[in-house]
Amino acid sequence: MPDYKAPLRDLDFVTNELWNFDEHYQSLNGAEEVDAELRGAILGEAAKFAEQVIAPLRRVGDEEGCTWSEEGVTTPTGFKEAYKQYIEGGWTGLSVPEEFGGQALPASMGFMVSELMGEANHAWTMYPGLSAGCRETLMAHGTADQQQSYLPKLVSGEWSGTMCLTEPQCGSDLSFLRTKAEPDSDGSYSVTGTKIFISSGEHDMTNNILHIVLARVPGAPAGNKGISLFLVPKFIPNEQGEAGERNAVNCGSLEHKMGIHGNATCVMNFDGAKGYLIGKENEGLMCMFTFMNGARLGTAAQGLNHAEVALQGALAYAVEREAGRALTGVKSPDRPADKLIVHPDVRKMILTIRSFSEGHRAFLYLLAQQADKTHLGNEQQKQEAEEMMALLTPIAKGFMTETGLEAANIGVQVYGGHGFIREWGMEQNVRDARISTLYEGTTGIQSLDLLGRKVMKDGGAMFGRFVAKVAADTQTMDLAYAAPLQRKLKEWGELATWIGQKGTSNPDEVGAASVDFLMYSGYMVNAWVWGLMGTLAKAKLEENDDVFYRAKVATADFYFSKIMPRTEAHKVSIEAGAESLLGLSDSDFEALAVL
Amino acid sequence: MPDYKAPLRDLDFVTNELWNFDEHYQSLNGAEEVDAELRGAILGEAAKFAEQVIAPLRRVGDEEGCTWSEEGVTTPTGFKEAYKQYIEGGWTGLSVPEEFGGQALPASMGFMVSELMGEANHAWTMYPGLSAGCRETLMAHGTADQQQSYLPKLVSGEWSGTMCLTEPQCGSDLSFLRTKAEPDSDGSYSVTGTKIFISSGEHDMTNNILHIVLARVPGAPAGNKGISLFLVPKFIPNEQGEAGERNAVNCGSLEHKMGIHGNATCVMNFDGAKGYLIGKENEGLMCMFTFMNGARLGTAAQGLNHAEVALQGALAYAVEREAGRALTGVKSPDRPADKLIVHPDVRKMILTIRSFSEGHRAFLYLLAQQADKTHLGNEQQKQEAEEMMALLTPIAKGFMTETGLEAANIGVQVYGGHGFIREWGMEQNVRDARISTLYEGTTGIQSLDLLGRKVMKDGGAMFGRFVAKVAADTQTMDLAYAAPLQRKLKEWGELATWIGQKGTSNPDEVGAASVDFLMYSGYMVNAWVWGLMGTLAKAKLEENDDVFYRAKVATADFYFSKIMPRTEAHKVSIEAGAESLLGLSDSDFEALAVL
Repeated sequence: MPDYKAPLRDLDFVTNELWNFDEHYQSLNGAEEVDAELRGAILGEAAKFAEQVIAPLRRVGDEEGCTWSEEGVTTPTGFKEAYKQYIEGGWTGLSVPEEFGGQALPASMGFMVSELMGEANHAWTMYPGLSAGCRETLMAHGTADQQQSYLPKLVSGEWSGTMCLTEPQCGSDLSFLRTKAEPDSDGSYSVTGTKIFISSGEHDMTNNILHIVLARVPGAPAGNKGISLFLVPKFIPNEQGEAGERNAVNCGSLEHKMGIHGNATCVMNFDGAKGYLIGKENEGLMCMFTFMNGARLGTAAQGLNHAEVALQGALAYAVEREAGRALTGVKSPDRPADKLIVHPDVRKMILTIRSFSEGHRAFLYLLAQQADKTHLGNEQQKQEAEEMMALLTPIAKGFMTETGLEAANIGVQVYGGHGFIREWGMEQNVRDARISTLYEGTTGIQSLDLLGRKVMKDGGAMFGRFVAKVAADTQTMDLAYAAPLQRKLKEWGELATWIGQKGTSNPDEVGAASVDFLMYSGYMVNAWVWGLMGTLAKAKLEENDDVFYRAKVATADFYFSKIMPRTEAHKVSIEAGAESLLGLSDSDFEALAVL
Repeated sequence: MPDYKAPLRDLDFVTNELWNFDEHYQSLNGAEEVDAELRGAILGEAAKFAEQVIAPLRRVGDEEGCTWSEEGVTTPTGFKEAYKQYIEGGWTGLSVPEEFGGQALPASMGFMVSELMGEANHAWTMYPGLSAGCRETLMAHGTADQQQSYLPKLVSGEWSGTMCLTEPQCGSDLSFLRTKAEPDSDGSYSVTGTKIFISSGEHDMTNNILHIVLARVPGAPAGNKGISLFLVPKFIPNEQGEAGERNAVNCGSLEHKMGIHGNATCVMNFDGAKGYLIGKENEGLMCMFTFMNGARLGTAAQGLNHAEVALQGALAYAVEREAGRALTGVKSPDRPADKLIVHPDVRKMILTIRSFSEGHRAFLYLLAQQADKTHLGNEQQKQEAEEMMALLTPIAKGFMTETGLEAANIGVQVYGGHGFIREWGMEQNVRDARISTLYEGTTGIQSLDLLGRKVMKDGGAMFGRFVAKVAADTQTMDLAYAAPLQRKLKEWGELATWIGQKGTSNPDEVGAASVDFLMYSGYMVNAWVWGLMGTLAKAKLEENDDVFYRAKVATADFYFSKIMPRTEAHKVSIEAGAESLLGLSDSDFEALAVL
């Protein structure tokens, strides 16, 4: 695999030409100064860090993995040093308000920097990534005292953080949660229980780790309504605010995983560990939701990450490797074979990956603008942005990770047998990508969120407003994209209505249609952004015959010709309804399992 | 993951009820005695071996992998002992003619036994699997002397074999082949070159390894027409026919792979090794084709293998694990959550896997019958069978491995985050499955074989005869399946004709449509077998309300409702033609690769 190269040309296109970030930032309160030059400078530095510091650790991290001992967890060679450079560069505080010691850049700048880091090294990026989750939780729900005690060191990166939700008996469904938190006389709590799948739970990068822990206080209601949120530091801060007494929280073991080996996925044991309540008792899950939406977008970005890595690898190989002859006749008569790229199916594979990676980037950065608006916009901007985020987050998480995984697999396929060999890096990309459709809510869970909580919640009003927005965009779109998109928009609405009606009499109809509807919706959003990008690139080509714009048009054309047809399959599958899923009873399945 | 359980109930259904193997064997010359009782006894023993001996080594093989040293390659703990039991059980000679020391059972019995072995342990099964390739090559193209010297020990399993085709610079396209074979005065050749990706190339299971090697003799024409086939034994047999002098062939290193860690994938160095010509000089590739078709079916079977493993794992988990509540209301009020199986999308995932695993088994065993006919049938049977094999082999290889990989990934998905953890075994299934769409010709290569060499070769006549055969079967099929299948059969023919016509003016149209057409064809074949199975199961249900038959009907209904719609996407994509793949030139792609 070639060395990772930050796709700055496409970031430039998406931010400066497609979504006009200059105008966007000027419309926000406190982001006016973030102009193209400043953005370019930051992204240039981030690219350098990603390319030179952490991309070379991608394979090291995979091969070495993390090592557990009684004393703690050792990260792979170089991880710790890279983290040191990262915090020295001030990256951990990029989008954090100044009051907490950050640089107060808009959230979207954090998205962009994260994209590059996630592409260069998924496993490594999860260390600062989890800290961000902890930090956001404290910023949103911590007391002033808690914020003062913990945020400066978290923002500087001197300390790191985790999110401790899952337990052996419960993953997506937290109602089974058993970890206990018993109040102590000093106002703190004594936290006892076992958490699993804790990313970055224990490591050697920072001298303190702050765990955000879901637990139950005595007498808490059963189920989701009895869950509270606690902060459990590995070392309890002393009076000087430094890491002091060792707390009773330990990493019991590391999980052996398919990928992201460089990240320590820990079993964490809390043995009466001192914890501090965040927010109110029994309102923990609600507090978590703030964080979860951000985490879902972060995971969506991993779909983009793995598609971009696949694109860079597959393209480099296809223009270099020789095999077979073009169907239309010999292209390289002086060589015993032509390049892979002459084969239509190889082109199809590469354009498929490209249509995802660049489509996802455009989609993600639009969401990044919405995130900015929710923080810095006026009331109307805020409301519109929140609505768009609510609707599009499950689509982004589900669709981008599913197609990111597909792209990663295509990356392997382009390499033929070599794709299966570790040294080429393409198989690692698949293994690392595989987690993204699972964690932060599986695709199935996203699809129920989309249909149940978003599309159907208000009788389709919010969904209808989004469809109308896309329809409005088609008015200025090149006809090659506008015409099919308009036809499909109508169909999208009809499918939503159909499911809503069917769901009224039988809720299982919603569950039966949900993943098909999510994927259909993803292809629609991608069509929208490709329609916009293709139209824009066509205009640019009139001034400048740049291969970059020609590739945009070609990929847009390809997307509408070869990828959009997938909506046909999802449509017919949706319309087939739930009946064929309900022919067997639960106990039939049980009987089949032991047949 | 639960222990592997040989799916004997479904094998019974497919062999005794669906394809009527009694009648089939009675129609063949020399297979009359293989009745249901004998088959059952053999499969029972094979199931025992698969379940008890090699399935427990699946994870061991993955975790330990193979170890290289100057002295040779050590296989994982238990692999060698299992192989000893395997040859003591006589399994290596099951389908080999008596004249070569075998048990002369029909080829199809070998397919059935291989299915169970491949499901229990893909990596382990490749050791006897590669020997079979070597054996078939010697049986088809070796001289009487060669057969006498090598076959008895190969058939008994005392010696093993490999196929050495690939070199660093050439995989699918063997025209680049560089390995040299220079004639020596004693009629043997001196073979020099490097081969890569040699499965089972070196190991500690047998005391001799016979390499079938592609190489060029001096003055051989360039390209594919200058390739000859050689037998290069690791130890040259002495006068007593035992392993004698050590030959100059060595394993230089082992590949580090995504999966099938238990199989030694070797770089093999031939340093003037003594080799013996098989067949005629420069006709090596033609000889290889005999073997390749068999190998492709063997790989197709791996699609079935991984789907079956996914099915067993996912189903066991879905009826056990609790998460969330049914959309239609609480199912297990005494528990904090319902079983996963209550969720429609979980059912959809499981039925998707089931529709592939059982569909593939039915398809594969139909091909196994054709393989029998090519060996033991009369002239007409032979001709019909060869035609069907020729058309269906690329579909089986491409479609079954692609959907096998999809099934393996769904297996992970059903487990949520646990699917990513090694101990559950589902992620290993994905890693092991990943090779199947790559080796023995990628899906892209299968698709060009299907369209170029099969469907379009005779103006569609052979393809048309197969479509007519399926159409005839719809006459006695339950209308629920017959009606959609008949409609689609017409469309299938139209698509083939359309591609043929487009391809005449632009051959790239064939390459652009090929993978879509292959997948479309796979879904059609699967629809055909599910139509037959669903119809048969409905009839059985009238006598006997067996959950097995109810599951057959439910899965058939599901397949037609939820999986067949995928043909819509492939159809529209085919009809979009090659244009959108040709918008960029080869040099545009080169420019994009370094942008």
